Amino acid sequence: MVDLNSLLYPRSIAVIGASTQPDKVGGMPIRLLRELGYAGRIYPVNASAPEVQGLRAYGSLSDIGEPVDLAIVAVPASASQDVMAQLAGNGTRAAVVFTSGFAEAGGAGVPMQERLARSAQQAGITLLGPNCLGAMNLRERVFATFSPIALSGTPPVGEVGLVSQSGAFGAYAFALAREAGLGLSHWVTTGNEAGLQVADVIEWLAHDPNTRVILAYIEGCRDGTRLRRALAAARAAGKPVVVTKVGTTEAGARSAQSHTASLAGEDAVYQAVFDAYGVHRAHTLEEFFRLGYVLSRGRRPASWQRTSAGEASAVTPLAIVTVSGGVGIMMADRAEELGLPLPPMPDAAAEALRTAIPFASTANPIDVTGQIVAQPRVFMDAIANVARSGAYGSVAVFLAGGANAPRFWPELQQTIGALSEAPDAAPLMVSGLVDDDKRAWLEARGCLVFREPGHAVEAVATLARAAALEDARGDDAAEGHAQPTAQDDLLRDIPPAATALSEYEAMRLLAEAGVPVAPHDLARDADEAVRIAERLGYPVVVKLCSREILHKSDVGGVALNLANAQAVRDAFGRMAQAVAGLRTDSGAPVAFEGVLVARMVRGWGEVMVGVRRDPVFGLVALAGIGGTAVEIFRQTACGLAPLSREQAHAMLHASRVAALCEGHRGHPQVDLNAAAQVLASVSQLAAELGDRLDTIEINPFIVTAQGLVAADAVVTLREDSHGAP
Amino acid sequence: MVDLNSLLYPRSIAVIGASTQPDKVGGMPIRLLRELGYAGRIYPVNASAPEVQGLRAYGSLSDIGEPVDLAIVAVPASASQDVMAQLAGNGTRAAVVFTSGFAEAGGAGVPMQERLARSAQQAGITLLGPNCLGAMNLRERVFATFSPIALSGTPPVGEVGLVSQSGAFGAYAFALAREAGLGLSHWVTTGNEAGLQVADVIEWLAHDPNTRVILAYIEGCRDGTRLRRALAAARAAGKPVVVTKVGTTEAGARSAQSHTASLAGEDAVYQAVFDAYGVHRAHTLEEFFRLGYVLSRGRRPASWQRTSAGEASAVTPLAIVTVSGGVGIMMADRAEELGLPLPPMPDAAAEALRTAIPFASTANPIDVTGQIVAQPRVFMDAIANVARSGAYGSVAVFLAGGANAPRFWPELQQTIGALSEAPDAAPLMVSGLVDDDKRAWLEARGCLVFREPGHAVEAVATLARAAALEDARGDDAAEGHAQPTAQDDLLRDIPPAATALSEYEAMRLLAEAGVPVAPHDLARDADEAVRIAERLGYPVVVKLCSREILHKSDVGGVALNLANAQAVRDAFGRMAQAVAGLRTDSGAPVAFEGVLVARMVRGWGEVMVGVRRDPVFGLVALAGIGGTAVEIFRQTACGLAPLSREQAHAMLHASRVAALCEGHRGHPQVDLNAAAQVLASVSQLAAELGDRLDTIEINPFIVTAQGLVAADAVVTLREDSHGAP
Repeated sequence: MVDLNSLLYPRSIAVIGASTQPDKVGGMPIRLLRELGYAGRIYPVNASAPEVQGLRAYGSLSDIGEPVDLAIVAVPASASQDVMAQLAGNGTRAAVVFTSGFAEAGGAGVPMQERLARSAQQAGITLLGPNCLGAMNLRERVFATFSPIALSGTPPVGEVGLVSQSGAFGAYAFALAREAGLGLSHWVTTGNEAGLQVADVIEWLAHDPNTRVILAYIEGCRDGTRLRRALAAARAAGKPVVVTKVGTTEAGARSAQSHTASLAGEDAVYQAVFDAYGVHRAHTLEEFFRLGYVLSRGRRPASWQRTSAGEASAVTPLAIVTVSGGVGIMMADRAEELGLPLPPMPDAAAEALRTAIPFASTANPIDVTGQIVAQPRVFMDAIANVARSGAYGSVAVFLAGGANAPRFWPELQQTIGALSEAPDAAPLMVSGLVDDDKRAWLEARGCLVFREPGHAVEAVATLARAAALEDARGDDAAEGHAQPTAQDDLLRDIPPAATALSEYEAMRLLAEAGVPVAPHDLARDADEAVRIAERLGYPVVVKLCSREILHKSDVGGVALNLANAQAVRDAFGRMAQAVAGLRTDSGAPVAFEGVLVARMVRGWGEVMVGVRRDPVFGLVALAGIGGTAVEIFRQTACGLAPLSREQAHAMLHASRVAALCEGHRGHPQVDLNAAAQVLASVSQLAAELGDRLDTIEINPFIVTAQGLVAADAVVTLREDSHGAP
Repeated sequence: MVDLNSLLYPRSIAVIGASTQPDKVGGMPIRLLRELGYAGRIYPVNASAPEVQGLRAYGSLSDIGEPVDLAIVAVPASASQDVMAQLAGNGTRAAVVFTSGFAEAGGAGVPMQERLARSAQQAGITLLGPNCLGAMNLRERVFATFSPIALSGTPPVGEVGLVSQSGAFGAYAFALAREAGLGLSHWVTTGNEAGLQVADVIEWLAHDPNTRVILAYIEGCRDGTRLRRALAAARAAGKPVVVTKVGTTEAGARSAQSHTASLAGEDAVYQAVFDAYGVHRAHTLEEFFRLGYVLSRGRRPASWQRTSAGEASAVTPLAIVTVSGGVGIMMADRAEELGLPLPPMPDAAAEALRTAIPFASTANPIDVTGQIVAQPRVFMDAIANVARSGAYGSVAVFLAGGANAPRFWPELQQTIGALSEAPDAAPLMVSGLVDDDKRAWLEARGCLVFREPGHAVEAVATLARAAALEDARGDDAAEGHAQPTAQDDLLRDIPPAATALSEYEAMRLLAEAGVPVAPHDLARDADEAVRIAERLGYPVVVKLCSREILHKSDVGGVALNLANAQAVRDAFGRMAQAVAGLRTDSGAPVAFEGVLVARMVRGWGEVMVGVRRDPVFGLVALAGIGGTAVEIFRQTACGLAPLSREQAHAMLHASRVAALCEGHRGHPQVDLNAAAQVLASVSQLAAELGDRLDTIEINPFIVTAQGLVAADAVVTLREDSHGAP
């Protein structure tokens, strides 16, 4: 882990390129540090001015006479190399480089940034930037930034750490946090990431005692291992991470690539990473901050249950109590979309409510109707009864404008006050129009307050998920799976230059890994092919076997549904002849290794399973329903390989393969655990194949009453085993 | 159309059950009318008090001595019938009934409500309620409601008419509109809808000169014809309609059913209705009001193009101009999701920007970078240049906190001021932190202002759609399609009691309607079956023909892929024998009409097309990709029958059938226009079959190089041709 203490808790700060004008890039940090109460030592470094903004200035770093914790660098890019040498001489521990004109500008900026990074690394300096807006520690009043945003006010000191790759996004987020009253611990922008990446900051925040929730904005990630380690650290520390990852679409990804030179990558892979570590993903700014608010202030549900949607996914039984039937229905719609069960009101509470208001609905949503105006006490009793009944993990309340009504508010205060002292009461999420002072009062008693009724419901789902994640922090699973060691002997018979396995080799590998494959054998001549076919039983499939021919059907190398010896013999002949005329790219004749003879597997559905190598995050497993038409929907699920059985389960559900297995259209039910194990085994095999592996594709797995059976397998290899992750 | 003038523009209002206490249900309307400035005559009716809230009271309606325009009824349900008689005697034109305890309470409430509705109808009284919160005309200060919400302030008078089935939702919406400063014309809640339905109010608002945008909240609709007529009227008037329809999920629909006794119905059918009339649908309260704001105040794009996503769907080329690359990417993601093209900056403007800021990105999003602080003029020029370039329909700008910066704001004012006077400039959507006074200034110059950057992009899509809709108001299509007359002779040979057609009859009907069907003929004996097969060419399909057997394969009545005469002969024999043992439900022997012999159609995909009868909205057409696995995804599209060719096109796209037709996996391209015509023809046939039709299902249509060919058809009939829509 990179240590950010010198960056975020510095006892001394030097400003290189300090300006006497407080609004200049080199002047603003000094102004901020002084005006906003930084208590450490500030050393302006300026070659010509004896004094900068009322502080003694230093001609050079060496004049300071002590190593500084943090240097803020506001000099032109061309001077940066010289400054780094000075920092090294001084023994500076961390540097923030605002300067732009490095990699994001292309051309000479790229090697200049590389030199900057190298110098920092050699001198052991923690480098933030270049082309960044800097960092802040709100608690310690450290403002190592040239953004004037903090001059117009700072958010309260709190437990949300915010890190953003983009400076402008970071500044806007700062302003929104201030407006929303969201308490921040630290604020860091990473810019070009020559040194620190967003991942490093997340990892450090995961260990920072003043941070409980981490909000991160990323455009792209260059080092997948680092990001995974950071997310694992946050998970192990029980700290929720909220991520906004932009560039989800092609247009977005294109612009992300040109901006701060980051690689947006494939969104589904990022989502798989986020799913694996229980990251909460936000798609709008509003959601980003709302998740920060919910996760940093929200009480976890009184109870929750894990779901099949992933390791960190959970739901909780929810009570909806509303003064408007219509809004109650909106909330129920949202609850169903999120999978939150809505059990009916317990009998005693229902009886009490019906006695007081005969028209009230005691189903869930619990609708006390407009009678709330005449009988506010009945509404309060309904809330208190469901919250204390033990039947619900959380209670979402819609008050309309009730909280602000003078006759209503004292009653609400009394009820909420009593509930906040009852340790067994389910937490309350309140929605409606609530004045700021009343909102603060409610929040101080553990209620969250929303304007949009659906947000109260979403908060319950978010908090159930967070609770499950926090609960899992002791599990081994929480730290991610240990990557299995590559098993070199798996490819012992394969020449080092081979770029693929023959299908026979691929099938053998799968079978050894415990994956059910169609019964098969390799035939080197027509007689042997017939013998194998007779042994397996007709109908059979005959497929050309060659490491050099990946697309067998293009050369007539696949014959399905052969019913007798003659058909097998004919197929063998045709394939031997077809190969005879083929040449490899280098002009050599294609080696004919024989044909694979396999039993024709019959089933009622096809499943596709694959593993491929993402340039950033390494091996990624895919699963989906196969077949021509389904390709059009592309509803595949994606996960990091190797998968746990639970992750495989979640992928089978997300890709709807589970529905195909669960007795669809009168077909027998297929053991879903076994199917998940098959998927997990393929991903495990991929990991064990190590750096040589390029892709595995098994398409189709046939769905049969006995489970999934692999009917076709392609394994491609990388010639060079050293390089990418 | 029901006339709401007496309800919403009354010259006199009587309050039956007027209370001397202003906070009671019978007192509040008098208080509101007096305090908030209603200028007409107010007649409190109270049997005992001579004066009510300072007004002379009347012992009964007959004492008033003139027919009143509007009566507000605040008496117990038991007295309602008597009051209706008084209203009839007085010649009252409209009545608002607040009272609850009618149909929503069940039991005796149901017939009581029926009597209430009948009395009103017989007396020619326009009835709002019962169990409703009443109505308001903001302009005329008519407050026919017992909700105290208006006492704490009213929204500005404006051009948005709001109608809500739910009273509590309506009151909350009123408060939110007030808070958002959204100008309202009328506010109506319909409650139990014994008289007026939401649809009636929409239709009247479509003709109201003071209303330009209609916001409607509905839980369910009992009269589909009425709602369609209302939406057609709004469309013809060029007035956008925004609908929040709750009960989209099972849980929600369940609670909607118990609340105000409405039938939520199937959400996909509602969506089809909304699509057919270009209704804007909102899923949250925030979106409901945001759409109201955008549609009532937003300038339409300078240009737009229709899309394949439906008749009223359109997009426009968008320029994104941003001070933050990161936020620009978020906006680009949203634009791509909404299908808005992002063409690059025109050369001259790009050149000017690059000259001023070499690092700026002149692709689109146009990122002027943090240099905006040092060079605000460059940013302004970029906005002005793209807005006036003619290359964009709209411009979405992200300012971060810029608008509030003292150095920046005068520059922005100058630029926006000049653009607002240029008639050819594309409209601007601004996002960022903007103080209220600056926001008002921008809005007065035709800019919309948002906090969330993505909302600026969504607004552009919404306004393109509105522009296309307004443009289509003259079209015949805009009024909905004339329902074709039922062609009685189509079923001339079918006995009146038949509940289905035989497949031969169904195929003949389709063929007559111009739908391509597999070449086929009816065989009454085995020899004839063979003759037909030889004529069509092998392989063939043989299927049992009987009006009494819908599920042919259950009784062995389907034989596929028959390759020779013997196979056809055998199949005939088996089917004849199978039928011999069968009995109908009434115990009679099943009639054997022969077998259908059809050519076996080969293709590479299956499409399912159907028409069924929705209890509220009538005939609904469905289309989707067929086959076992695809059923799992249920990605069907739904539209009101008969479909126009354009609507059919949109359904082929929405269901991904278009992708299957467009040369998928190397298959030849299928004529999509012809496929859309097939779908439209099936829906047209269904409409022509009239009341007798129950369902049509063609599954599969085989996708071939020559287009879609129907390989199986089921038509079911209703015995009784009189009844449902």
